[in-house]
Amino acid sequence: MFQIRTDLALEAREMYRETTQQEIPGVEVEQKEEDFALVTRVKVLDQQGSQIMGKAEGSYITIEASGLKKADADLKDSVSQLLAKELVHLLPKKNNLRTLIVGLGNWDITPDALGPQVVSKVLVTRQYFETYNKSEDATMTSVSAISPGVMGTTGIETGEIIRGIVEKTKPDLVIAIDALASRRMERVHTTIQISTTGINPGSGIGNKRKGLNQEALGVPVLAIGVPTVVDAATLANDTIGLVVENLSSQATKGSDFYKMLKGMSDEDKYSLIREVLDPYGANVIVTTKDIDMIIKDVSHIIANGINIALHPGIELKDVNRYLQ
Amino acid sequence: MFQIRTDLALEAREMYRETTQQEIPGVEVEQKEEDFALVTRVKVLDQQGSQIMGKAEGSYITIEASGLKKADADLKDSVSQLLAKELVHLLPKKNNLRTLIVGLGNWDITPDALGPQVVSKVLVTRQYFETYNKSEDATMTSVSAISPGVMGTTGIETGEIIRGIVEKTKPDLVIAIDALASRRMERVHTTIQISTTGINPGSGIGNKRKGLNQEALGVPVLAIGVPTVVDAATLANDTIGLVVENLSSQATKGSDFYKMLKGMSDEDKYSLIREVLDPYGANVIVTTKDIDMIIKDVSHIIANGINIALHPGIELKDVNRYLQ
Amino acid sequence: MFQIRTDLALEAREMYRETTQQEIPGVEVEQKEEDFALVTRVKVLDQQGSQIMGKAEGSYITIEASGLKKADADLKDSVSQLLAKELVHLLPKKNNLRTLIVGLGNWDITPDALGPQVVSKVLVTRQYFETYNKSEDATMTSVSAISPGVMGTTGIETGEIIRGIVEKTKPDLVIAIDALASRRMERVHTTIQISTTGINPGSGIGNKRKGLNQEALGVPVLAIGVPTVVDAATLANDTIGLVVENLSSQATKGSDFYKMLKGMSDEDKYSLIREVLDPYGANVIVTTKDIDMIIKDVSHIIANGINIALHPGIELKDVNRYLQ
Amino acid sequence: MFQIRTDLALEAREMYRETTQQEIPGVEVEQKEEDFALVTRVKVLDQQGSQIMGKAEGSYITIEASGLKKADADLKDSVSQLLAKELVHLLPKKNNLRTLIVGLGNWDITPDALGPQVVSKVLVTRQYFETYNKSEDATMTSVSAISPGVMGTTGIETGEIIRGIVEKTKPDLVIAIDALASRRMERVHTTIQISTTGINPGSGIGNKRKGLNQEALGVPVLAIGVPTVVDAATLANDTIGLVVENLSSQATKGSDFYKMLKGMSDEDKYSLIREVLDPYGANVIVTTKDIDMIIKDVSHIIANGINIALHPGIELKDVNRYLQ
Repeated sequence: MFQIRTDLALEAREMYRETTQQEIPGVEVEQKEEDFALVTRVKVLDQQGSQIMGKAEGSYITIEASGLKKADADLKDSVSQLLAKELVHLLPKKNNLRTLIVGLGNWDITPDALGPQVVSKVLVTRQYFETYNKSEDATMTSVSAISPGVMGTTGIETGEIIRGIVEKTKPDLVIAIDALASRRMERVHTTIQISTTGINPGSGIGNKRKGLNQEALGVPVLAIGVPTVVDAATLANDTIGLVVENLSSQATKGSDFYKMLKGMSDEDKYSLIREVLDPYGANVIVTTKDIDMIIKDVSHIIANGINIALHPGIELKDVNRYLQ
Repeated sequence: MFQIRTDLALEAREMYRETTQQEIPGVEVEQKEEDFALVTRVKVLDQQGSQIMGKAEGSYITIEASGLKKADADLKDSVSQLLAKELVHLLPKKNNLRTLIVGLGNWDITPDALGPQVVSKVLVTRQYFETYNKSEDATMTSVSAISPGVMGTTGIETGEIIRGIVEKTKPDLVIAIDALASRRMERVHTTIQISTTGINPGSGIGNKRKGLNQEALGVPVLAIGVPTVVDAATLANDTIGLVVENLSSQATKGSDFYKMLKGMSDEDKYSLIREVLDPYGANVIVTTKDIDMIIKDVSHIIANGINIALHPGIELKDVNRYLQ
Repeated sequence: MFQIRTDLALEAREMYRETTQQEIPGVEVEQKEEDFALVTRVKVLDQQGSQIMGKAEGSYITIEASGLKKADADLKDSVSQLLAKELVHLLPKKNNLRTLIVGLGNWDITPDALGPQVVSKVLVTRQYFETYNKSEDATMTSVSAISPGVMGTTGIETGEIIRGIVEKTKPDLVIAIDALASRRMERVHTTIQISTTGINPGSGIGNKRKGLNQEALGVPVLAIGVPTVVDAATLANDTIGLVVENLSSQATKGSDFYKMLKGMSDEDKYSLIREVLDPYGANVIVTTKDIDMIIKDVSHIIANGINIALHPGIELKDVNRYLQ
Repeated sequence: MFQIRTDLALEAREMYRETTQQEIPGVEVEQKEEDFALVTRVKVLDQQGSQIMGKAEGSYITIEASGLKKADADLKDSVSQLLAKELVHLLPKKNNLRTLIVGLGNWDITPDALGPQVVSKVLVTRQYFETYNKSEDATMTSVSAISPGVMGTTGIETGEIIRGIVEKTKPDLVIAIDALASRRMERVHTTIQISTTGINPGSGIGNKRKGLNQEALGVPVLAIGVPTVVDAATLANDTIGLVVENLSSQATKGSDFYKMLKGMSDEDKYSLIREVLDPYGANVIVTTKDIDMIIKDVSHIIANGINIALHPGIELKDVNRYLQ
């Protein structure tokens, strides 16, 4: 069956409900309205839920702050703090936590550069712990960070690189940052997804990678992602949906044509979409002209959130100041 | 009437013919197949042609080299040479020509950075003529170049800035480079349009600018453009067209529904497109993930072509070497 | 006579005093210690002072904040505010002031990119005044901005470009930003010079430019500069000075050798410096490895100061938020 | 004893000879003049040689092509080919060689970005061998590449990261690229050093790293370096030398002062240098204003040389074309 590509658990669930008008079995959902953001917790509880969702079992927390479209710096700070709060709940309960931050994606391709940009803005501290041979500090925990590049530029699966580094440096936790695709442009730049499942093959824009998850790395992996593009297939699909809906409303209810429209199968839609997109080529994306600025902006918000969550001595006031 | 936005004269004509199955009155077209490229010359001869096309009277030469999608360096060189040859025909017949190259667009927005990137790669020589107070040279002509930025970053209409510089430096010719929008992704990166009409209000992606044309500047203006994006409306429109076509083929010929589909007006389509795109926001574009590399690549081809055309002492072998 | 190259009036005066132990005739100096900065006002009052200083008649205000070496964000904000306060005193007394900001220097050469980087961070508003055809606003004044590039990349003297733009857009004031050379590394990054004399031929690193001053442009020109490099000749000169001093202290007072050392003329020193630097080539500079970060950082401070000074509705809290 | 810092074996030997007028024991030197370059082979044969040189035992091949200062593209190609030829001699004799290229240094600090820039230009092929599960190819060998960043940005010693990756991907050879410091500005940009000893603690600009050498990684390591800066201490030292020489020539031979000058010890010089440089701070370097362009340029030459050396199917004509 054709599925509009989304990396957001929230949207996978939305799509299922749109088609079936039911909640996905094996999936639990909880929503909470904050002043400036809607927080949705999707828990994929079992294999059935996982298969329907196309997402690994685990928790997916989505922060949607539609106000982020406007340049409101106070809101940005609030989102960083909310992200920090959510992260803190997910951190392993352990003193002197040691974290490796991994920025996935290609820094030379703007919509794919979110991970590397976050990495360039997080506060890296592991070298001090190593140099002074200490294991604890009142104001910070040990953080290392790397942006390994993508298979097209390294020739090596990112998972292999990270496994090598994890074996050498033995962190307690990996946080992986990646650019995502959404099915709705309104979520591009305004939505942050945190998941406890790590990164699993096939997700993320760019080449498929082997997993970055607890199974592969031997330590828990939190994934943080922000949609930076919409799949072009989504735009085509939206258009088809709207045309069909529009025509249906004009056709006599119950007429042959009405039935035909209503019965248009996913396969039919999919082959239409493929026909539409074929001349557009493989790498086609839908995004906004100001994607360069957006990536810069949102990578700040994420890096701030991580810095606050990991370093007890850092408050928002400080992180804004440490970062350029 | 709604018109899919295109900056290519070639496509404006294509679209007219698709709808009317006729050639546009007041427009002359000539095509020539080269080994590696199709060269189309569209001449807008009178006001009628100009109105239908939505393009100023003048010549529009389009070089389509679909092979540019692949990284074939010999082909790139051939396209630079073909561009140079076409430019040479359009240069004012005058010894010791003095040219000002203007890179339009915002260098911080990747798909809009074509102009600035070309400017950074053209060979600038005017300072030598000024310093040594000479007016001719066997190997080069006087070339100056500027990327003024866009109104959003300067607060000034680009036309005003260029008029000021033209008055001070009195070039014989302005060549303006701009990123364009196409209606077909297959033309993104593979098509170069040269026009004798300069840049006119409303064209180019980004803010509307007052004209950069002979009327405004007092000297001839050649415009060189390459499509770097497809308007999202185009993708929506393509999709609608395909859906309608597909449904028509399934409906009984002559049935009410068939008629309805066939009679779907441009206004209907336009309002559907608006409905589709509304949630996507204002700046939505369709492009490819590797747009950063493409802009780099194609700006080389254009700069090479300009360098060969303007400097008699420079051959292709040399220009490749001068450029980074 | 050889003069160590400095763009700071403060240092030109320092050097005169070191040699002569006197104040420069025709020059008035005033210093004020702030909590975090030393503010020195050098007024060049007449032609004699101007000739000795090698600086045009006018005021030169220098803010030295040695603490800027450390990443103390509160201090940065204080310096922005102090800069804003000084600028406000120098603005023409006029309602609805219209300002053109000019970023001098080459954005592709890191130590020369200060001007372009500041321009990319100032709040540009002129387009709103033009679009809505209004001449006043309670919260902002009309600001336009341009980074024209340098003669090596445009082929045009920067002065000519700016004159053209000034004639078209008729601002009341030009503020020009440029990277400077200091004679002391400790002033690199930590010192801001504001002058009422504009930019005059030969100053700034990079090619000589014709003036950007009231005489040339017909409107007052404020120049803001920050040292980003030390001239290599300065390092050589410092070394020679130290060697001579050291040897003098070892030689018998009054001996021939002592006299020879003490009597070493500026010409002798100059020819030694030339001999030292000759193998280093023309473009040699002394700077710090982290110059890329420093330029980013200090361009923020300057842009913040300008934004606060020009827009009545903007406070520090806001400017930090508007900027990336 | 104070030693002017140089990363070039060639210069370490030069300095020894300048002081002692002798060849270093345990070191063999061979020079060959090519049309456009001087190739010097320094072999450090035993521990004594190693200690005096401050370099590990092994071969150091230096290509000096002073013509590289000018933009002569044919010369650049010749240097790439010469580099390729030298590399081929040093490659392990083995079919289907598998190479990991490591770009050392910080890509955000221009003079330190040589390694990352080379990595971004080498042809990476390992993914094809892995995907198609093949081990040989007539036209290429398996190449992977990574720029891990520096300890200040990752928190991890580069050696640890590379060890992890080597264990996972088991290459036959590592080639490490690094920016170097020279004692002569004339060698900046014009000199390439290849060594069979890898990278050893303390070399390279930037933080000390643990070794990248056969002992640490278990596979042979070739190091390729190009000087991008001169240590500021070198400029100070050159100046002192010149002053002393100049004064000596003026002092009566045999006089006390003459003896004092001639007898100035390295310790004295060192303390003078420290006194000179102290106000300049820790990160002070001497470089050229156009360092940004130089790094771009020279990284092309190196990447071309590596590509030709590793891939039998690639000729110079091709590599120039593959690279941007």
